[in-house]
Order: sequence, then structure tokens, then C-alpha cells
Amino acid sequence: MMDFHSLEWRDDHLEVIDQTVLPDRLEIRKLTSAADVVDAIQRMVVRGAPAIGVCGAFGVVLGLDGGLPLDRLVEAIGSARPTGVNLRAAVERVARAAATSDDADEGRAGALAEALAMWREDRDACERIGAFGREELASVRRVLTHCNTGRLATTGIGTALGIVYAKAQAHEEIEVLATETRPALQGARLTAWELTEAGIPVTLIADTAAGSALRSGRVDAVVVGCDRVARNGDVANKIGTYTLAVVAHAVGIPFYVAGPMTSFDPAAPDGGSIPVEERSGDEVTSVAGIRTAPDVAVWNPAFDVTPAQLVTAFITDRGVLRPPYEESIGTTLVTP
Amino acid sequence: MMDFHSLEWRDDHLEVIDQTVLPDRLEIRKLTSAADVVDAIQRMVVRGAPAIGVCGAFGVVLGLDGGLPLDRLVEAIGSARPTGVNLRAAVERVARAAATSDDADEGRAGALAEALAMWREDRDACERIGAFGREELASVRRVLTHCNTGRLATTGIGTALGIVYAKAQAHEEIEVLATETRPALQGARLTAWELTEAGIPVTLIADTAAGSALRSGRVDAVVVGCDRVARNGDVANKIGTYTLAVVAHAVGIPFYVAGPMTSFDPAAPDGGSIPVEERSGDEVTSVAGIRTAPDVAVWNPAFDVTPAQLVTAFITDRGVLRPPYEESIGTTLVTP
Repeated sequence: MMDFHSLEWRDDHLEVIDQTVLPDRLEIRKLTSAADVVDAIQRMVVRGAPAIGVCGAFGVVLGLDGGLPLDRLVEAIGSARPTGVNLRAAVERVARAAATSDDADEGRAGALAEALAMWREDRDACERIGAFGREELASVRRVLTHCNTGRLATTGIGTALGIVYAKAQAHEEIEVLATETRPALQGARLTAWELTEAGIPVTLIADTAAGSALRSGRVDAVVVGCDRVARNGDVANKIGTYTLAVVAHAVGIPFYVAGPMTSFDPAAPDGGSIPVEERSGDEVTSVAGIRTAPDVAVWNPAFDVTPAQLVTAFITDRGVLRPPYEESIGTTLVTP
Repeated sequence: MMDFHSLEWRDDHLEVIDQTVLPDRLEIRKLTSAADVVDAIQRMVVRGAPAIGVCGAFGVVLGLDGGLPLDRLVEAIGSARPTGVNLRAAVERVARAAATSDDADEGRAGALAEALAMWREDRDACERIGAFGREELASVRRVLTHCNTGRLATTGIGTALGIVYAKAQAHEEIEVLATETRPALQGARLTAWELTEAGIPVTLIADTAAGSALRSGRVDAVVVGCDRVARNGDVANKIGTYTLAVVAHAVGIPFYVAGPMTSFDPAAPDGGSIPVEERSGDEVTSVAGIRTAPDVAVWNPAFDVTPAQLVTAFITDRGVLRPPYEESIGTTLVTP
């Protein structure tokens, strides 16, 4: 397996893989300021809720180095993308660490230590998700997944794809059906690339073909990631997830959501309280190098919310959470 | 409304709008041989089950002009694309007309007369679908549709979009949510263009956003076309249709299929007997001017089959057909 990290701290700056130019080119970008970090997150140079969270954490450190006030940093970075809960939580956690000392250098050191800890924690959480998922999906060989939830989306082996990597590493048979994931094509560009690099069999399909794939017996389980999970188990994730969950339910295929507990939001009672980011229509209209009908209106929500009752189980770094979710999620959120 | 026809016979050749270059350019191609017709159908220069059928009909005339034997013409043109039933049925009908005379000129004249009749019949069928649909969808203002089923897909105003045009012409409020329809983007390229040209409000969405649109109360009814309907009401249509039907059913939104009776196949007892065309993976991987992971495997079915029980009603040129479909379709197929 190729050795790379989606993002890494280097002495005084952050290095990230530019996910907008993959798979054409593997390019590293240096982020040296909080503004760089906000820009990278908004343009999806860095993406994936866990990776965004850690990236934002280092962004606070870079902002302090640039002499910016902590509250402005928390606001600017924490709101760069609204749907994933990891980002704001991470930024606030680093800010708390920075605020423990009145001395600027000490505060900065505390912030950096916290960001580095979060980088490692996310990596370790991926390992545990992989291990729990491997156990839960012992009899699963053919996984359908959506978007990208692997090494590019986290600082470790990934969430949904982390389970795929864990199975592959244990020499279990595993193959992946990857949806291309319009509009930003994270499946076609990133998941197909990651898995091919790792030597794991992957077949790409248009999002429109997912229903046929599920109905025709080509899939043992759907496994996706999550950007924010509410206390009742409603899940915000990449647009298209809800549709997969409905079809999986209709044809009787298990639908798993994998993610670290940092993606669970104790402040969100249900999916209705999760803000869904709407992005520029250009993502939809400027495909294949052509423009569609000039000036056509576009609705481009980046995420959707899947109701808890369509989720078979959550595979987290703290174990597999099963219905009733109010109870299993609630207990896990309050247990240290 | 701009005046154009997807295809038109001109003295000794066929003129067609090249649907592969829309909406960038509105270009007319001359088809002067049966080989031209097969190529145009296979490359989707001409597409839409009804338009393909009529195009194939004229292809037989062009083939006769080129001195080709009738049985080879039927085979070559009739099998250019396998899923839609219109093509083979149309080719066979023209071939029967050609075969009524031993005289080549008379046979050719009979074939041309039949092809011209089919062009008019398809146009008239669209008008009747529009009228029946307008009545059925009297209280519907916001339609979600898939692929392209309008003036480009037929020789008239279209099937599902024909209903939209009929409502607009009657000054009823109507707006369309159009899925982009990966991989070939018929929604983004053709439906968005057609409706914009006609001044009908259209909003484009990625296929992945359809579930959210249906669940969030943005849609009164889903209306799609069909490539082949089996006797029990199972429907083969553009890949992605099945998913829309499942979600519409789950959230309680009516799901209509519009099409002429020429798209109903008396020889197909159910969806299992409809061949589903699989096309080149390049359609999926060569998007946005980039290639995805090199040599990634692709599964690219062009159609899927929606089970009859998910269809609220069929809106045809012979009226609205309701469950039980074995009965309503069966009766309509045998009644002249």
C-alpha cells in the first residue's frame, strides 16, 4: 500500500494532499495561515468530516501564529463548512487548550499539542472502527459504498473504507462497488484511486446504477460514512446517502454507517437540527467540460439526512451501536 | 417555443439533431444509409425509445435504397440497441410494408409511406399522452423527471415532458425538477435545454439529490418515460428510474410512467424478460475532462427495471392505465 497522509503537520505549517486534482495528480499543498485552512476546507482541497476537523484544529494554531484573536479564529474556521460536526467541535477543543494559559507561547504550544493529539486520535479511531467493522461484517464480501471515506477522508485508514482496509489486511475476501458520487465525484476520483492503489478490487458505477446493483444481488452490505449523527440516530452524510438507505431497506440489504464518535453531535436531537450545506450550482453544471443549458437554475445540497430507522447499525471507534439509538448513542456519548 | 424536430425525412435522406453535442451546439446530421442510422442510434446521436423507433424505420428505407436485403436490414437496425421495444417493432413493421410487393420500387414506396406514417403517429401519440396526462395531473404543479422524454426523444412534444408541455400550453402552473441523469447527462444536457428554450421553469439536480427533493416536499409527482413495458407493468427505463420509484413509494409521492403503446411489449410477460443494455465504462470514467483511477472496472447498465407495483399509473396515448396492469395493459394491447 502506498504511504500517504491526507494531512500532516510540518514544524510550522500543514501539508495536505490536494483532493481537487486527484486522480490526475498527487500534489501536496502547504497551508500556512488560518485563511489557507478555511479556503482548503471550503474548496474541498481537504474533505471528509474527520480530516476537516483535524485540519481545522491545526488552522487554529496557524491563526495564532498569525496573531489572530482566538474567538475570531473559532468563528472563521468553525463555520467554514456547516454540516459535519467534527470541524466546529475540533476548533473549539483546540481553542480551549489555547485558552488555558495567559502566555501566548504556552497557549500556542497547548493548542498545537491538542491538534497533534487529535490527529493521532482520529488515526486510532479509524483502526478501531476497522476492527469492530471487520467483526460485524465477517460474512460480507461485496460492499457498496458512497463518496470517499478512506485515507483521504481521515488521518488514518478511514471509516467505511477503514473496514474494507481492515478486511483486506486480514486477507478476507473483499470487493467494493463505488458510486461515483455526483456532483463532486469523490467516489470516481478518490475512492477508485485509493482502493486501486491499495490493490483492492473496486468497480465504479454511476449513482443512478446503485438501485439496480442493490436489487440484482450484487451487494452484501452498504457501508457509508457520516458527517453528523444526531442523538436519535438520524445521519447527515453525502448527498445520495438517503436514497441508498431507502433502496437497501426496500430490498433487505443491511445499511451500515461507520464513523468516529467525534461525528456524533450530542447537541442535535434529530436530523431536523442538522444544517445542510448548499453549494454552488457550478458543481452540477460544469461537468464533462461543457456547460448545460445556460443560466439553468440548480439546487445543489451537499448532504442529506437519513432517518435512523433505515440504519442497521453504527460502527464506531467505541463499538457497534444498535437500535434503539436514543439509548445506545446516548450511553456512548456520556460514557468517557 | 423554438421550432425543431428531433428527426425529419428530406426527399432521400434523414436529418437528425445531433444530441451528443447539445447544448453546446444545435447541429443537424444527414443520415444517408442504414449504417449511418445504426451508428446514430448506437452513439445516441438519436435517442429516446420513440425517436429511435422512427429513426430505425427510415433506416430500412435508406437500406433498401442502398440495395441491402430486407432481412439483413431488420437484423442490423433492429438490434442496434436492445432495451427499447420500439426499435425492433418499428423496423419489422416497415419491413412488412416493404415486403407487400415484389416490385422493388413499390416495396420501397410502401416502406417509406409506413415510416412517414409512424413519424406522424408518434407525434400524434405525444399529443394524446399530453392531453391524458394534463387531466390526470390536474393538481400537480411540481414534477420531478429523469432523463429526456421531450421533443428530442420523440417526433412530437414528448411523453413525460409532453405532459409538461401540455400543461404549460394550457397556461397551468408547472415547474420541473430535472435529474442530470448520469452517465450520459440527458437531463442536464437535453431536458434543461429543451425546457429553457420553451420558457418552462426547470431546476437541475444531481441524481444523488433526487431522494432529498422527494423527501423534503419539493415534488408533487414523479413522471418518467419508458423504453419497454412488460405485460405485467414492469418498466424498463433509463438507469436510475428504479431508485426514484422506490423513494417516491417510500415517501408517498405518485410515480407516473408516460409512453405510447408502441413502448409496451406484448411478448414480454415481465421485467425479467427485458434485455438490459450495458454500455462502455468510458461513459462513466471520462467525466469532467478527467479520467478516474486508471483502468478501474466499471459496471454501466443503461437501463433498470422498475416493478409494476411501484407505478401509480401509465399515461399512454390510449388513456391512463391503472392496476391491475395485467388486465389494463392486456386489454389495451389487444384492442385495436
